[in-house]
Amino acid sequence: MHKFEEKTTATQPIYDGRIIQVRVDDVVLPNGASSKRELVKHPGAVAVIAVTDEGKIVLVEQYRKAMEKALVEIPAGKLEQGEAPLATAMRELEEETGYICEDMKLLYSFYTSPGFADEIIYLYEATGLTKKEDKADLDEDEFVDLLEVTLEEAWELIQEQRIHDAKTILAMQYLQLKK
Amino acid sequence: MHKFEEKTTATQPIYDGRIIQVRVDDVVLPNGASSKRELVKHPGAVAVIAVTDEGKIVLVEQYRKAMEKALVEIPAGKLEQGEAPLATAMRELEEETGYICEDMKLLYSFYTSPGFADEIIYLYEATGLTKKEDKADLDEDEFVDLLEVTLEEAWELIQEQRIHDAKTILAMQYLQLKK
Repeated sequence: MHKFEEKTTATQPIYDGRIIQVRVDDVVLPNGASSKRELVKHPGAVAVIAVTDEGKIVLVEQYRKAMEKALVEIPAGKLEQGEAPLATAMRELEEETGYICEDMKLLYSFYTSPGFADEIIYLYEATGLTKKEDKADLDEDEFVDLLEVTLEEAWELIQEQRIHDAKTILAMQYLQLKK
Repeated sequence: MHKFEEKTTATQPIYDGRIIQVRVDDVVLPNGASSKRELVKHPGAVAVIAVTDEGKIVLVEQYRKAMEKALVEIPAGKLEQGEAPLATAMRELEEETGYICEDMKLLYSFYTSPGFADEIIYLYEATGLTKKEDKADLDEDEFVDLLEVTLEEAWELIQEQRIHDAKTILAMQYLQLKK
């Protein structure tokens, strides 16, 4: 048990959605005082760093409703119930980009918003890419554009804030460090 | 307007909390079909890369209820209503670590979970650190331990998953790239 552990004395379920669950926990703090924690449960996700044999990074642009703008990101997707992260990574890469790969290696996992959400992302690196299909095979509520850029072009996209999320900046720094 | 824009036709408020707001939007997709988006609104946050004159990275360990475990992270905190991110960064660094700084530079901003939340983090780098107080001045529901580590030790913490969140890994990569 961690010395700062916060014991739950009551849980109030707020919302049970298709993707997220929301609840508020009453907790006892290490000093004995009471507080509340607003918590979002998320199934977790994968993200994939994929670089073609020509040295181009495979990215996708999609509309993100929470920000009401389109973002350019590395391919990513939620874990399905009972699906291993590696299988999700293979599936999402193919569905979103049409690429299959020879090897898929786990680099890191990380929580995205530890202050209020338990979302974890498993970040993979795909190598030995082959384009399987001309068109991506997307979920029915998913619309994405494929981009293939150099690392230098990716840094420009970061400057322009078209790349503007933590996992994708982390992925670009990973590729920069690999150089 | 982006070609993939999702127009909102109805909004269902779910929860209006102290930190987060949750709502479900009915949207019309680019192909005319309908879907729902589960969305979390968050006030945004800052995070601070702080390296002492002795080359030690200032980190904090705290209990994260969403994961039911303690994580080691760079100092961070939520934006208060009407507070500029730079002021939040100065305040959080001092409150959580007791350090004040001569300079505070914005490096990046990034969304943490663009698939369901609008949380944005402004990542700063603090330089010219001076320890102002022996004890950190924390919020009443906040309990943190201060750690000061080398970059090599930080990579070990990442391996051990005691550092296990996106912003802190991204910050350690930034410091590695600066070397």
